[in-house]
Amino acid sequence: MYYIGVDIGGMSVKIGLVNDEGEVLFKTRATTVKDNPEKVINDIGDCIDETLTKNNLTIKDIAGIGIGSPGLMTTKLGRVDCAYNLGWVNVYVVDMLKKRFDTEIKLSNDANVAALGEVIFGAAKGYDDVVMLTLGTGVGGGVIIDRKLYEGYDSKGTELGHMTLIFGGEQCSCGRSGCLEAYVSATALMRDAKRAMLKDKTSLMWELCGGDIEKVDGVIIFDAHKKGDKTAIKVIDDYVTYLSEGMLNFMNIFRPQAMIIGGGVSAQGDYFTDMIKKYCLEKEYGFHNAPKVDILTAKLGNDAGIVGAAALIKAK
Amino acid sequence: MYYIGVDIGGMSVKIGLVNDEGEVLFKTRATTVKDNPEKVINDIGDCIDETLTKNNLTIKDIAGIGIGSPGLMTTKLGRVDCAYNLGWVNVYVVDMLKKRFDTEIKLSNDANVAALGEVIFGAAKGYDDVVMLTLGTGVGGGVIIDRKLYEGYDSKGTELGHMTLIFGGEQCSCGRSGCLEAYVSATALMRDAKRAMLKDKTSLMWELCGGDIEKVDGVIIFDAHKKGDKTAIKVIDDYVTYLSEGMLNFMNIFRPQAMIIGGGVSAQGDYFTDMIKKYCLEKEYGFHNAPKVDILTAKLGNDAGIVGAAALIKAK
Repeated sequence: MYYIGVDIGGMSVKIGLVNDEGEVLFKTRATTVKDNPEKVINDIGDCIDETLTKNNLTIKDIAGIGIGSPGLMTTKLGRVDCAYNLGWVNVYVVDMLKKRFDTEIKLSNDANVAALGEVIFGAAKGYDDVVMLTLGTGVGGGVIIDRKLYEGYDSKGTELGHMTLIFGGEQCSCGRSGCLEAYVSATALMRDAKRAMLKDKTSLMWELCGGDIEKVDGVIIFDAHKKGDKTAIKVIDDYVTYLSEGMLNFMNIFRPQAMIIGGGVSAQGDYFTDMIKKYCLEKEYGFHNAPKVDILTAKLGNDAGIVGAAALIKAK
Repeated sequence: MYYIGVDIGGMSVKIGLVNDEGEVLFKTRATTVKDNPEKVINDIGDCIDETLTKNNLTIKDIAGIGIGSPGLMTTKLGRVDCAYNLGWVNVYVVDMLKKRFDTEIKLSNDANVAALGEVIFGAAKGYDDVVMLTLGTGVGGGVIIDRKLYEGYDSKGTELGHMTLIFGGEQCSCGRSGCLEAYVSATALMRDAKRAMLKDKTSLMWELCGGDIEKVDGVIIFDAHKKGDKTAIKVIDDYVTYLSEGMLNFMNIFRPQAMIIGGGVSAQGDYFTDMIKKYCLEKEYGFHNAPKVDILTAKLGNDAGIVGAAALIKAK
């Protein structure tokens, strides 16, 4: 069976044809995401038609169309309530596409879709209960319970980045302070690295970014860490502590079989997750006699959005 | 239809006959909980027989037997893995009772059972997705998703009291520090009140406890609060802040329709929950545009354990 995955991003919409193994057989892209929603949805429809035609398929060969979108949404209405990056307010994505395609169409949040994709096709294949954290500009979360996406009331749940970890701590984008996102997003890692660099002008990170502090990124921080730079070591140690403490919270709350780390930092692979595993093991995964929780890194990479969206259809 | 609810406590085991409305029609008690497990289970069996006989019922009139127990357990095996208060290690409660009673028998953790009881029969009747916090010596948690109990992998989940709220804060019984339990259990409230009293010898709380600081309890602290004692006001303000922040975390994580507060402090009713509602409303229930979460107090009272255990059978 085939699936269509639609990955709506801030810059473009990626559309792909996915098979039962989660392989992307064909990809195309609509680049008009900044236009009005009707135009964007129409272009997505054209891309779906192109995908079918170029692969000698009709809509009957497709199990359904899954859509991942940024923003707040009401998934049972197939509606994006509000997506600032797209300028969308109350856009009935599913209904608009249903006028063109006689097949099952499902919508969910991009972080949820990423998590579901990893469970159905990726790093956590074979696991039933999984919590995923995606560490990017913000921190997105996805919760899979019994191989099904858990979205919470009115699909407004699993905002895992907005759990206070340090009461009264760093200001968070959500209006509260001390949230996990304010400590373990890529943005927070850069902020902490820059603060540390300003206090240590001899840090190797200065050399690695050519003296321009605005060029510091995750790769530079980890490279300096690998070379033994003590300031980078402190920054990463703190980062690992914050992230591990947040993950221990989720282990206690959900007691999943596995947690998945996604986002740019997951490219560091075992070098990074080994530090987290060590921390969680020392803390006995939350409490004495608690079952071990596997810690995995996301596997789907650049196609995660397409494959995850396809998983919305495959999962049920 | 009738249900048998078995509530295993540290001092005794309560056994009750419950009807479809969650009313307890008959109650009895086994007082031998400190004996060896075989003897305790045998006494529970005798109490069940007594319950049936005295109500002119046979086991065929009963939909099943639900059991709530303290400690860590593996519910799918019907086994209490470890309950320190009872001195139980790996006790197969369900199998032992099945030898005597040919009916469905289910076991779960006491905090889970309390939450399920409130959803099936109590304060949250009619709600599908609910998170309950029971504020006692520790902080227990129960999560109901789609009217079903969520227990996590190997039924070791929803340890909601052990979420770090204040990184590096008060030492917690679980080995970590700064957990919600270390700030919002009844134990923590007493600790904070005593600390505040030692700093303010003019606090009304001294008078209310007759000059004996060991006699301070929740009722005294709230009474002093109601009478405008500034030290009690500060203690309760802090307590409300910690609890509300914890609840906002769970709202963001699960986005339930309602949260229930149980335990001794819930006897303060609206006087207490109005403060929490005000705090959560000011914080927009976690973030801008997030749906409101109803905040309820537990309703089942002294029979919560029996009725909740019966709910294990009724819920499916």
